[in-house]
Amino acid sequence: MTLNSADPAFVANLRRLLPPAAFRDISPAYLQEPRGRWQGQAGVVVAPDCTEDVAAVVRAAAKACVPIIPYGGGTGLVGGQISANGPAPVVLSLERMCAIRGVFPDENVMVVEAGVILADIHDAASKVDRLFPLSIAAKGSARIGGNLATNAGGVNVLRYGNARDLCLGLEAVLPDGQIWHGLKRLRKDNTGYDLKNLLIGSEGTLGVITAAALKLHPIPAGEGTALMTVKDPRAALNLLAMARDQLGEAISAFELMHRTGLEFLTEALPDLRQPFEVAPEWFVLIDVGLARGLNPSEALEVLFADAFEAGLVSDGTIAQSQAQRHAFWEVREQIPEANRRVGSVSSHDISVPMSVIPEFIERGGEIIAGLGDFRINCFGHLGDGNLHYNVFPLAGHHRDDHRNQRDAIKRAVHDLVDEMGGSISAEHGIGRLKVDDLERYGDPTKLSMMRAIKAALDPVGIMNPGVILRE
Amino acid sequence: MTLNSADPAFVANLRRLLPPAAFRDISPAYLQEPRGRWQGQAGVVVAPDCTEDVAAVVRAAAKACVPIIPYGGGTGLVGGQISANGPAPVVLSLERMCAIRGVFPDENVMVVEAGVILADIHDAASKVDRLFPLSIAAKGSARIGGNLATNAGGVNVLRYGNARDLCLGLEAVLPDGQIWHGLKRLRKDNTGYDLKNLLIGSEGTLGVITAAALKLHPIPAGEGTALMTVKDPRAALNLLAMARDQLGEAISAFELMHRTGLEFLTEALPDLRQPFEVAPEWFVLIDVGLARGLNPSEALEVLFADAFEAGLVSDGTIAQSQAQRHAFWEVREQIPEANRRVGSVSSHDISVPMSVIPEFIERGGEIIAGLGDFRINCFGHLGDGNLHYNVFPLAGHHRDDHRNQRDAIKRAVHDLVDEMGGSISAEHGIGRLKVDDLERYGDPTKLSMMRAIKAALDPVGIMNPGVILRE
Repeated sequence: MTLNSADPAFVANLRRLLPPAAFRDISPAYLQEPRGRWQGQAGVVVAPDCTEDVAAVVRAAAKACVPIIPYGGGTGLVGGQISANGPAPVVLSLERMCAIRGVFPDENVMVVEAGVILADIHDAASKVDRLFPLSIAAKGSARIGGNLATNAGGVNVLRYGNARDLCLGLEAVLPDGQIWHGLKRLRKDNTGYDLKNLLIGSEGTLGVITAAALKLHPIPAGEGTALMTVKDPRAALNLLAMARDQLGEAISAFELMHRTGLEFLTEALPDLRQPFEVAPEWFVLIDVGLARGLNPSEALEVLFADAFEAGLVSDGTIAQSQAQRHAFWEVREQIPEANRRVGSVSSHDISVPMSVIPEFIERGGEIIAGLGDFRINCFGHLGDGNLHYNVFPLAGHHRDDHRNQRDAIKRAVHDLVDEMGGSISAEHGIGRLKVDDLERYGDPTKLSMMRAIKAALDPVGIMNPGVILRE
Repeated sequence: MTLNSADPAFVANLRRLLPPAAFRDISPAYLQEPRGRWQGQAGVVVAPDCTEDVAAVVRAAAKACVPIIPYGGGTGLVGGQISANGPAPVVLSLERMCAIRGVFPDENVMVVEAGVILADIHDAASKVDRLFPLSIAAKGSARIGGNLATNAGGVNVLRYGNARDLCLGLEAVLPDGQIWHGLKRLRKDNTGYDLKNLLIGSEGTLGVITAAALKLHPIPAGEGTALMTVKDPRAALNLLAMARDQLGEAISAFELMHRTGLEFLTEALPDLRQPFEVAPEWFVLIDVGLARGLNPSEALEVLFADAFEAGLVSDGTIAQSQAQRHAFWEVREQIPEANRRVGSVSSHDISVPMSVIPEFIERGGEIIAGLGDFRINCFGHLGDGNLHYNVFPLAGHHRDDHRNQRDAIKRAVHDLVDEMGGSISAEHGIGRLKVDDLERYGDPTKLSMMRAIKAALDPVGIMNPGVILRE
């Protein structure tokens, strides 16, 4: 069906439906995305402060066949928050739906509106001595509705799962403007199809999430962090297996990093103090959160000693203070910023089955070497099989020098991922960036099911058109 | 669309498509269900041994508009495995798809076909020193495809989640006979809509699950079990909170039971040795699985001492051997069998938000008392908010004496559950048994979404018609 722009007549109609405070200037913030790949457009920006007003906007847009771009914190990396072409959309920001509707520490549950900033959820949880474990670099500006719409991952997935694993129920406005009241605070509810998980990860193409019931966790009694030097990625995998045998679910994060990451930090963020005198080729950051009665430093020492004995690690440092834990984590968390400053030719958010990670890294290196002279910064969430596999120019060169090689690099990396049973979007989603890739690598049956579901729930196609599925 | 019976012409066509070994006698086993509420029917029973043959059956049925009943172990409690009326269906049994396709202990993954019996998966996992934690009373005959189709729960949900939380990927045949190859062994994969979770819990109405990639877990280094007497359900909740603060995720199960359950065991299973000299009114079974370095008995002793100090528990026994652990668990696991022998007037598989459980039990008791003289056996998975709330005749009476009160009891219990934000099907699903209840209590927007999805994916309506959604 043909969509229409949010033209002055449509906007005038919206002004009759919503209070003046719901209207925002069409400021650049709503029209940009962090990669700078697209310049957005909007006919109007609205920020309702209640679910009923969100529903009113969606009903009006459905009636007028005007596209809607749901907008959270704007931190997505695949362009899902941007309308780059076609009729000018309604940008529907959730920024004013930022109430915490209820905290239930006895149940380990918090009910929040979609516009609450992730870091504010962390704070609200810690006020009742609980943990909301979803954590990503953009936590200070990302909003939970967007985190759920994109099924955000981050550093604690190994222990606590992705965003979808931390959500018990949703309230959402569907493409026809109906409100789904699904804010259940239940751990078990087998009453029909799992619409919650269908909306989570649908990137705003099936409806607008307006509120969520989130799972909280107990704060581990004792936390500890170590850096350990490993010979290669296979040794890192074996170290993870050993750590799990010893500590079970207590491994909160297990991040693999390469010397290239440290070199980029030196190059781009020289003020950051690095924890190594001599940079190792491969190393891991291990974070543990233990039950009462276990000492994290001792547990990490036992692990290190056993791993050293088994030839898996050659060196290691266990954080002796919160400040040192923070310093270790800074290394990991600043690598994406260093990458941005160095400027990648092509970056890839991929996952492969854990046991083939070493083979993937080896073959990937050979393939990239065959395409030219590049630096590879491969790092990420080893325990989830999720690597950020990013390809950079040599020192002294610029990404633009390799502009015409980008597609070949991306294709080669994604072909290898696909051959090895992996995913070309582990945690960032499809957005607009990977629509072609999804068509190329996605299972055809899955794609036809997805199109059938989209057509059934959003027959006019107003919800975030062009995201995930081609218009 | 009108459906047709699997008549002799259709069966003759199937015989051209499948090898003779794929055909089974229409034996009573395929036409019965454990509650004895329905007598099933079938035009033909087929048991293909490969996915391609499952697809051939579905394509043939789709072409001829013949209904299909996917059949696992036949242990479901809501009639989802039975066609009670309408055109005679194809009963499509997965019993010959029972290969374990791959075990990946490094990844904590096992890939199995849908017909593998749950207990065989447990055995295969323990052979590689891993745990597959999904556990239900019917584990000796339930098949994993059915466990996933119904999103089975069980006793370890508190720690490890429901069936859906233990599945990484699926292979399935869709209602048009297409095969979806979604057997990914990935922890992170954000490539489009979550079809895996849509199929899980759809009770065979959206397709036939043929294989699954399952998550395994490390076996906890030390396991322990205790029975503790609590004053009331609120004390049990507080005890759970204390246990979580002390032991984090290590609480594997936390089951609340009432004296009525022990009385039923005495009445129906007098040979079972009971662990109490004097039966307490309320008690809990706590199961812990701890990381290396912690002693389960000591941890349970500390918990008991602190809980005693806080006035939460008055008595307790910690299992001193595997035999004693087993004996404690027997009490819990035999209660459903005792219930069956006593014969309930009405039984309810419900959940409510955890913090309102005490209020639910109190108000439920008052409501039932207002309806007549009954015994209530309320027990279940407290940590999941999931209670089996079953209403029985007084001793010396028979369930049939109260036949005309069943509907009023069920309605009263479900009304209360609904009022308190709960679910009228916590873990058993909707099947045929609760279609009316789902229409009564389900969110209307959710129901209309479900119907739209069903119509989009199964326009002819051949997949398990009458289950979840009315035909």
